[in-house]
Amino acid sequence: MSTKVNVTWKDQMAFEAKVDGFTIALDADEKVGGRNLGPRPKPLTLVSLGGCTGMDVISILGKMRVELDFFDVEVEGELSDEHPKYFHSIHIKYIFKGKDLPMDKLEKAVTLSQERYCGVSEMLRKAAKLSHEIVILD
Amino acid sequence: MSTKVNVTWKDQMAFEAKVDGFTIALDADEKVGGRNLGPRPKPLTLVSLGGCTGMDVISILGKMRVELDFFDVEVEGELSDEHPKYFHSIHIKYIFKGKDLPMDKLEKAVTLSQERYCGVSEMLRKAAKLSHEIVILD
Repeated sequence: MSTKVNVTWKDQMAFEAKVDGFTIALDADEKVGGRNLGPRPKPLTLVSLGGCTGMDVISILGKMRVELDFFDVEVEGELSDEHPKYFHSIHIKYIFKGKDLPMDKLEKAVTLSQERYCGVSEMLRKAAKLSHEIVILD
Repeated sequence: MSTKVNVTWKDQMAFEAKVDGFTIALDADEKVGGRNLGPRPKPLTLVSLGGCTGMDVISILGKMRVELDFFDVEVEGELSDEHPKYFHSIHIKYIFKGKDLPMDKLEKAVTLSQERYCGVSEMLRKAAKLSHEIVILD
């Protein structure tokens, strides 16, 4: 199965991406000739990762009847010093809030995503050291 | 240097990503319990790649004084059959339109991006077979 996206130049450093029928603006920082009309392209790799594993976890916890008040996936990537600069190390923080959350089920959902379902994690793990932690907020 | 993004759960399968101060909605397909309120997370990896190399190319061609009427980066990824499904093969089509475009300069800009500057290409190349072509439209 194949997936196609188009990233089309607008003007100066601004681009517009078409993906699944939606439009996402992309632009460079003002320091490098952009006008900050949208996010930089590189961090979208981290968004892709956070969304992929986040949807796995919410779906698995739903099947386990775990109810959440809040769930955030914070993804932090460390860039290499030399060109081409890429994320050589990525840390995923799964942050949950809810009443009497069962840590064993949260851990199971995260592990299933990381080890079995999340294709973006599987892909990026071949290039970066991936780590994760689970945080429960009061 | 580190880069951080947050992908926060809204409700059902919908998430909202915060990246560089911008918000991007993400959602699953209706077939898997989503409401299609935003793109799927996985293709955003391809958007990240297309934007990264597209900005390189537009910046290098600008320095070479090559003027374009149109420029589109089409990125197509082939998903693996088994879970976790990831893009094992990615093809990038650089599509240009303009008056008397110099193919040698287009090729040089694309090669510089692929071999020296584009960090997302560098990263994904460790997981996927990357290929590209240059197309000049009449």
